[in-house]
Amino acid sequence: MKGKVYLVGAGPGDPELLTVKALRLLRTADAVLHDDLVALEILKLIPPTAHVHNVGKRCGKKKILQAEINCLMVALAASGLRVVRLKGGDPLIFGRAGEEIESLRRNGIPFEIVPGVTSAMGAAAAAQIPLTHRHASDALVFITAHRAKEMHATDTDWSKFVASGATLVIYMPGQNYPEIARRLTAAGMADETPCAVISRATTRHQRAHRTTVLDLHRAPQLPSPTLLVVGEVVRLADTASTVERVVVPDLSRGRDSVLPAAFFKTVLSPSPRPRADEEAMA
Amino acid sequence: MKGKVYLVGAGPGDPELLTVKALRLLRTADAVLHDDLVALEILKLIPPTAHVHNVGKRCGKKKILQAEINCLMVALAASGLRVVRLKGGDPLIFGRAGEEIESLRRNGIPFEIVPGVTSAMGAAAAAQIPLTHRHASDALVFITAHRAKEMHATDTDWSKFVASGATLVIYMPGQNYPEIARRLTAAGMADETPCAVISRATTRHQRAHRTTVLDLHRAPQLPSPTLLVVGEVVRLADTASTVERVVVPDLSRGRDSVLPAAFFKTVLSPSPRPRADEEAMA
Repeated sequence: MKGKVYLVGAGPGDPELLTVKALRLLRTADAVLHDDLVALEILKLIPPTAHVHNVGKRCGKKKILQAEINCLMVALAASGLRVVRLKGGDPLIFGRAGEEIESLRRNGIPFEIVPGVTSAMGAAAAAQIPLTHRHASDALVFITAHRAKEMHATDTDWSKFVASGATLVIYMPGQNYPEIARRLTAAGMADETPCAVISRATTRHQRAHRTTVLDLHRAPQLPSPTLLVVGEVVRLADTASTVERVVVPDLSRGRDSVLPAAFFKTVLSPSPRPRADEEAMA
Repeated sequence: MKGKVYLVGAGPGDPELLTVKALRLLRTADAVLHDDLVALEILKLIPPTAHVHNVGKRCGKKKILQAEINCLMVALAASGLRVVRLKGGDPLIFGRAGEEIESLRRNGIPFEIVPGVTSAMGAAAAAQIPLTHRHASDALVFITAHRAKEMHATDTDWSKFVASGATLVIYMPGQNYPEIARRLTAAGMADETPCAVISRATTRHQRAHRTTVLDLHRAPQLPSPTLLVVGEVVRLADTASTVERVVVPDLSRGRDSVLPAAFFKTVLSPSPRPRADEEAMA
């Protein structure tokens, strides 16, 4: 019997922001290989019978090499197991999924990619920032402040993105805000451009700090994972979310409150009648 | 009693790619206002007791003005109803959520934003395209081929994005591929750059067509919604997905197969023991 690997996005943090499919796969996995950035509340959903491997590599402190992750994934699937490779947010951006996919293909392991809510969307929803707006920004750019040394010797030049007027979402900004502010300014970003640091979005620990590029260097050191949104659309953010917690999702009563029986009872209620007049898919 | 509005992302098409939260809200909504691009299989999950309004505005054929949508949303919530404003993909990009949020704030209506899997992630997962890759692209740009006339008289200049080397995802490309190819070439995109048109991703009707910028003008007219991915990472796509269907999710037996009772039984199985050694959230 041959196993299979599912490259699954865990979403931004709130277990309720897992997709229904991700939840189903997680609850039926034989083995789970997860990143450090996946929230503990989500890891608690893994059945106790599953083998769980934390394969996180954070801030340069490598516990495990990418080649070792690939090897482990292939070996477990080749043993006939259903393997979930769980990544924070969506699996296909800034997650080295490309290398994992190549390895799975090379070894003839069946696999499937299950998209997730990427961190930018979670952070924007929490801080109520429309990432595009017909009168402010008609493009959205995802970049990262950390990058592969192998690609270029120097940092990416952000000037083209700044000149485009697009909303910038900087993944993994780290805590070096003075350096990021310097790079933004060097790239031509105006001092008064609003920006927001959003920390642990969609969890009950979430916090946001709104500032400008000029004052970004003195932003508080909020806990990881964080995300930085830069652009005029940040002016449209929830004005109550400047520094303190923006929303406190009701996850405090543990996993029973996250997935209440009442919810599933609702889900399993009799089928609604189909509405033939609402044919939506063109 | 005051109602509330939930701005909810419906994800890319597959009902299983709804978030758990979106599914819960949809199943308990008093009223649902949905876009045209939301898949019929998802609309079937709405309870028969809910008021359902198709407020889609597609391809310039406006059935309803944005101001009318805002007004309807406010009126229903002010009547004490739980209103779900359901948008394809994620609610905060290319969806005019900014205007809806402003209207809700102005009218003092409580609201919450529930992020979703954006179409780009669904399309990339279906076609197995890693959207970023440490050796190919370290940035991701979301643009649209349709844009607000009010913003500028002319089309957005894509040259800055092309020069950046980022992967481009073009939302709502329409069917005018010769025009898009012309704009990409005018922006400096090399003829041999690979690109993929992905149609109705993550549904059982999904199809993908892989080509190059040079040959994009003769891409087949695939059914909406479509998405166009342009960049070197497209070379890493599933080679089996060039023209025909890439994956056929097992949704054919109707909604019972999408949300099987066995799945919920699994979800409701006894709590796994917490693993204290797996503390993931730094």
